[in-house]
Amino acid sequence: MTKSIKLLGISNAIVDVLSHVDEEFLAKIGAPPGSMTLIDEDRAHEIYDLMGPATEMSGGSVANTVAGFANLGGAAAYIGRVNNDQLGEIFVHDMNSLGVDVRLLPTPAKSPTARCHVLISSDGQRTMQTYLGACTELSVSDVTNETVREPTVILLEGYVWDIAEGPALAEKAIEIAESNGSKVALSLSDSFCVERHRDSFHDAVKNGVDIVVADEDEVNALLQTDNFDDTMKALDDYDNLFAITRSEKGSVIVHGDETVVQSASPVEKIVDTTGAGDAYTAGFLYGWTHGKSLKESAELGTFCATRVIQQVGGRIERGLLDSFQK
Amino acid sequence: MTKSIKLLGISNAIVDVLSHVDEEFLAKIGAPPGSMTLIDEDRAHEIYDLMGPATEMSGGSVANTVAGFANLGGAAAYIGRVNNDQLGEIFVHDMNSLGVDVRLLPTPAKSPTARCHVLISSDGQRTMQTYLGACTELSVSDVTNETVREPTVILLEGYVWDIAEGPALAEKAIEIAESNGSKVALSLSDSFCVERHRDSFHDAVKNGVDIVVADEDEVNALLQTDNFDDTMKALDDYDNLFAITRSEKGSVIVHGDETVVQSASPVEKIVDTTGAGDAYTAGFLYGWTHGKSLKESAELGTFCATRVIQQVGGRIERGLLDSFQK
Repeated sequence: MTKSIKLLGISNAIVDVLSHVDEEFLAKIGAPPGSMTLIDEDRAHEIYDLMGPATEMSGGSVANTVAGFANLGGAAAYIGRVNNDQLGEIFVHDMNSLGVDVRLLPTPAKSPTARCHVLISSDGQRTMQTYLGACTELSVSDVTNETVREPTVILLEGYVWDIAEGPALAEKAIEIAESNGSKVALSLSDSFCVERHRDSFHDAVKNGVDIVVADEDEVNALLQTDNFDDTMKALDDYDNLFAITRSEKGSVIVHGDETVVQSASPVEKIVDTTGAGDAYTAGFLYGWTHGKSLKESAELGTFCATRVIQQVGGRIERGLLDSFQK
Repeated sequence: MTKSIKLLGISNAIVDVLSHVDEEFLAKIGAPPGSMTLIDEDRAHEIYDLMGPATEMSGGSVANTVAGFANLGGAAAYIGRVNNDQLGEIFVHDMNSLGVDVRLLPTPAKSPTARCHVLISSDGQRTMQTYLGACTELSVSDVTNETVREPTVILLEGYVWDIAEGPALAEKAIEIAESNGSKVALSLSDSFCVERHRDSFHDAVKNGVDIVVADEDEVNALLQTDNFDDTMKALDDYDNLFAITRSEKGSVIVHGDETVVQSASPVEKIVDTTGAGDAYTAGFLYGWTHGKSLKESAELGTFCATRVIQQVGGRIERGLLDSFQK
């Protein structure tokens, strides 16, 4: 018997290629520090040729959340497209090894498996240059009753809207969720992504998305507000559950009349902020799908984010829940 | 004009696949903790399927030394065989990005690029399961006057003797060195490797090898001695330069009548001992090829090894020499 899946992620399946760079490097390639830029294959080769020695590890925002959710002990599944090349095998291996039920196996694609060149500055800031490769071949036909089944929550990644069939496959996932009783969560990915797809995101939030996970900038971009007070007012018009992270200001959960304000935990030294939001989402959704209150879920999200910023890499390690004390 | 190469490494070109495991895992796959085992492709798949999520980075013992030598600012070159697959491209990229002159480009091979499954226990010990893949296709015809040219030192890896044409290609490298005035260094790799190839190593040391770099166990295995006192006596019969590392006991350099005893530097916390010997060799050979005394070279080797055991991963970072104070 298949275990009952609590979280199914649908997202861009990406292998991170991490390397340390100096500020001159970012200037040379014309990348604003801290930005995420989509690049084509030629540009990917060009940047890689300029980069120093690198370390490769599975990444991707929602994929990180799904991996973290599984590492917390949650039953998780995943839909994302990789080529049947070595990086694709690495991505699927890493997911499978956490017990994630990977619904699409590596198959020949026109492009190689996606990679994100993660350029780490001396201050720990990360600038990302993403070549989507095989991700762009994720299609509506990959999202079916057979591949989705009946998870408690389907988590859609905003970045999926950047691929050709992204909006259509997201719509199909929402239809399937409506027919089988799954809830739909949407991660807004980054504020530039929201700028690119605001109307479509907004339609989805008004029609089918139950939960929005995002940081403050992303929600502001979605609602076209300038500050968080205005954002909170604007949320009066929404029935959705919003889980909003605010870095050192903690997080705020808004759902109808209920508002939870969760403070951040103090940390001695931030090693690497990569994946803080993804880890928060893993913890929050783990709590929420396991019958915890919004407050308890926010606490678990905060706990996961706090741990991930004190390590290198964006995925939270196995057994973390054991050390979470209420 | 080509810069004058100080160090050319000839070795097995390997990408490390690193993952944390518990002691049960090692028992399950029947791997003695701390061992290095050669495995075939089926076994490599079997072990990888059992492993947790992993991180990939370029590795290989002599390749680490060459990378470290280049990172110290030394002019370095490299001969090793990779397939033209993604891991092969990663390996060559990482070398090129350090300024290493890679003499063999990735080319189609019968087997995929080699990988070493590095299983890290909770105490930081590493157990290695190595699938040599494309490395086994390194051949005598890859070692020519055109690919070797005239480096100050050719560094041969003991593990090369594990591949079919290894002994023959090492012999050819020694012949080329004799004709063009290069010195030949031999890294003994590990004591089991010495057991596998003792006679052939011994012949090489007596006929053409100028410098032997090894740890105490490896030299004992070569000379069939039980303790270091006997090893030191046995070395009276050798004209070669021996650079012998002894972990926390430091290192000893023996060359004819000259003996240098170098103490280890105290470290607060050992993070990961991987690559300590390779880093020592990089530092020692950098000193030696840049006109430093044996004592100064041993100090630089110690400095590099001390640094590398205080970080994760076996390659020393760029700019390390700037912080080396006499």
